[in-house]
Amino acid sequence: MFKVKKFEIDIGYEYVAMLNEKDALELRLNAKDRVKIINPENDKYVICVLEIIKKVNNMKNKDVKLKTGEIGIYDKAFAKLEIKEGKNVDIVPARKPISLKYVKKKSEGHRLEKQEFKSIMRDIVENRFSEIETTFFVLACTFHKLNDTETIALTDAMVEVGKVLQFKQKIVLDKHCIGGIPNNRTSMLVVPIVSAAGIIIPKSSSRAITSPAGTADTMEVLCNVDIPVSDMYNQVNDIGAAIVWGGGLELSPADDLIIHVEHPLEIDSEGQMIASVLSKKKSVGSTHVLIDIPVGPTAKVKTMQRARELSRRFIKIGTTIGLKIKTIITYGGQPIGNGIGPLYEAQDVLAILENKETKAIDLKEKALKMAGVMLEMAEHSKKGQGYNNAKLILESGLALKKFEDILEKQGKKKIIKEGKFKYEVKAIGSGIVKSINNIYVSKLAFSLGAPQDKAAGLILNKKIKDIVKKGDVLYTIYTNSEMKLKYSKAYLKDNPIYEFE
Amino acid sequence: MFKVKKFEIDIGYEYVAMLNEKDALELRLNAKDRVKIINPENDKYVICVLEIIKKVNNMKNKDVKLKTGEIGIYDKAFAKLEIKEGKNVDIVPARKPISLKYVKKKSEGHRLEKQEFKSIMRDIVENRFSEIETTFFVLACTFHKLNDTETIALTDAMVEVGKVLQFKQKIVLDKHCIGGIPNNRTSMLVVPIVSAAGIIIPKSSSRAITSPAGTADTMEVLCNVDIPVSDMYNQVNDIGAAIVWGGGLELSPADDLIIHVEHPLEIDSEGQMIASVLSKKKSVGSTHVLIDIPVGPTAKVKTMQRARELSRRFIKIGTTIGLKIKTIITYGGQPIGNGIGPLYEAQDVLAILENKETKAIDLKEKALKMAGVMLEMAEHSKKGQGYNNAKLILESGLALKKFEDILEKQGKKKIIKEGKFKYEVKAIGSGIVKSINNIYVSKLAFSLGAPQDKAAGLILNKKIKDIVKKGDVLYTIYTNSEMKLKYSKAYLKDNPIYEFE
Repeated sequence: MFKVKKFEIDIGYEYVAMLNEKDALELRLNAKDRVKIINPENDKYVICVLEIIKKVNNMKNKDVKLKTGEIGIYDKAFAKLEIKEGKNVDIVPARKPISLKYVKKKSEGHRLEKQEFKSIMRDIVENRFSEIETTFFVLACTFHKLNDTETIALTDAMVEVGKVLQFKQKIVLDKHCIGGIPNNRTSMLVVPIVSAAGIIIPKSSSRAITSPAGTADTMEVLCNVDIPVSDMYNQVNDIGAAIVWGGGLELSPADDLIIHVEHPLEIDSEGQMIASVLSKKKSVGSTHVLIDIPVGPTAKVKTMQRARELSRRFIKIGTTIGLKIKTIITYGGQPIGNGIGPLYEAQDVLAILENKETKAIDLKEKALKMAGVMLEMAEHSKKGQGYNNAKLILESGLALKKFEDILEKQGKKKIIKEGKFKYEVKAIGSGIVKSINNIYVSKLAFSLGAPQDKAAGLILNKKIKDIVKKGDVLYTIYTNSEMKLKYSKAYLKDNPIYEFE
Repeated sequence: MFKVKKFEIDIGYEYVAMLNEKDALELRLNAKDRVKIINPENDKYVICVLEIIKKVNNMKNKDVKLKTGEIGIYDKAFAKLEIKEGKNVDIVPARKPISLKYVKKKSEGHRLEKQEFKSIMRDIVENRFSEIETTFFVLACTFHKLNDTETIALTDAMVEVGKVLQFKQKIVLDKHCIGGIPNNRTSMLVVPIVSAAGIIIPKSSSRAITSPAGTADTMEVLCNVDIPVSDMYNQVNDIGAAIVWGGGLELSPADDLIIHVEHPLEIDSEGQMIASVLSKKKSVGSTHVLIDIPVGPTAKVKTMQRARELSRRFIKIGTTIGLKIKTIITYGGQPIGNGIGPLYEAQDVLAILENKETKAIDLKEKALKMAGVMLEMAEHSKKGQGYNNAKLILESGLALKKFEDILEKQGKKKIIKEGKFKYEVKAIGSGIVKSINNIYVSKLAFSLGAPQDKAAGLILNKKIKDIVKKGDVLYTIYTNSEMKLKYSKAYLKDNPIYEFE
């Protein structure tokens, strides 16, 4: 039995505990071992990675205090145990994850059964896999691509090991975009529109990892997005809509852990991506989902052929797990909207909702089109009338009102100021804009400090087919960091985002 | 500038530092980010993973103390900076490892150039790779096997990013065994023999990870093995030999980090294994190396064909990097020696060195054969005379004397007692021993607590071709843990290590 101390330390998404070296030796445990910590009063347990504090006899005037017989539990793990400081826990070594043998099987090129995926997902969710082992799983599925049957099994397994929300309504709308297009903040328009039409939509969104902003980052400019799942559920029941950060909901914990190792690798496992998207939709209780697949030379999906194949897989796999799926293939040749970075993307959205004059016409049109399709999916609008109804809801101010309700519920924030440092990039010749490089735009905003610096980013003044004269402002960059401004100015010279005819 | 506090915390092989959340926010750093910490007085730096301590305004009566403006540096990273507590360091975000693009290239099935391997090895050694990224490299090389040219390039790269010892002698002997055979502690016999013959041999050995004992674990029963490289170098110059733990030498740091992610995966990347072995040999200053390849149904190498191909690759790659390589393919159908687990393996070795009666005749014979080959490689003995000379050295007591010198130099220990709990496994019928399962033997010793519990393990009483009568003791198991005894008794029933004709 060990006495619990709570350590308020953020160590990323891992569960960590600390023992002193005397106890660790006694238990024959080493640093980085995984141990199962059990709260005997309620049988809750958590599997933690171990850190070991040394020189225990020597700790009087040191900075970390942990006596023999005590265990320091970092706050994330502490919460899982539902325990109080000073109470006792049991510690046993965690067994090796049995399902590793299935990962090995997959890595050797064999197909996995549904039960095998489920076993892997359960071990991942229970934190029995190390990062190394989770990476092994992700890469085994990348090197030996998942077929449709496996992708369905993986999606099901992800849903089964997590929580699933259930709403009383028969139709619960949702949407997802494959991504890779800067701005493209359609969710923040579509959600208030369809919700104002009376259809519920519990929208969970991602944060940016390597891009300058996800919907969650942009929404966070205006209100809180890191909201417990029970609050989100109540909010949707109350006002019909929410726009929150999916990672905070912990609805699909296996997917959250997989995404963590996937991101730094920048790999492209289509099967896993589909399973990730659809399991999240299923878990949040959605029934009807619209998938947006933008195609363009610098988008994630580069050819129509690939877009059509992806569309086929989404429909097949989604249908099998009991979702109604529609897909739209959209233009992904340039950013959608004009602001890039959380604040500037939020400004585009607000201008459209408030029916103010805006350059972000393409964002408005795309959102109306998507909302229209979704209203038709939900049988709110007759075929062919969705777009017009969506437009009516938006332009009448009903969508804005609904959006304000969402902001109020989630905790509305005062809007921040634009970046302290600002620099206009001007045309050095004349011509017509031929293309805009999505990747360079994203990297530029990222190098300016987005999404951490919410006022970092850029506003595009010209889009494809616009006529440009020498000296015209092409775009303006913003940041709060002088160093980042300097670095970004060098970056944009080497990586021109515009090409002219 | 941040003021340094040393945190005496063992967190495995990682470099870790801690900031408080106020400073982290200021620097826009998150938990798990990698930062470069620089000692401005000597320009030493270390790249650390970041932990963030929360609720700084609230820390008065908490257990971890770290004020704004302070950085906690865990001891491994602290040592790298060569700094004192209270001094100042600079912190900058670590750049993304540039060489990740080569890992990606390899993962897509392309061949890598020498410079690309070197760039990867440098980033790994500098701690720029996360575990996830190192795993990506290891798996890319497993899924797309390294050819000979790549393996040579990788070996060279591993050597170049580490230190290389140089002895003044022209011939420096070494040996390596592919492994998978319990006991097989030839190094502890071969080293004193060839060294007593006047040839220097700086033997670095591994610890067991999933097996019941490595040479380092067994040697550790008798003396210290975790010895700084400078002490080891001086010892070899002084008495001609050492038997130490390779991981403590930090001669091939890239390999140490790669092995860390490789082990839990239990994968078999032949190219990486060859690069790992040969880079270690080259780094320690060896010139002539004997490679032992045991073959058997439960050994690592299962067929003669695979053994011959492995032999060819070792010779080709070793020769290219400037080593003289010989290989021997040996019998791997059962454990070599009778004791399994650090103490019992050490007992076999001591009995042979002391010319006492022992059942471990096979271990003695194998060691003499290998020592003979090595004496011939070193041109100490004429062709055909190595074995006899080795035998003379062993049986005259010269090898024992040399072994005692090694123990004294490294810090001789008092020998421990056998395990508190003991259990004899008896034959339930009669027959002749047909086979012994190496894997079950290893797992049984492991489940008894080896190698952490140095007195855990078993002593085999019967080997292949021995006649067994009902009631004969087949083997005796030992452990210091009653729980492990119980668990192991169940294990051995389900996994019989003997098969009879």
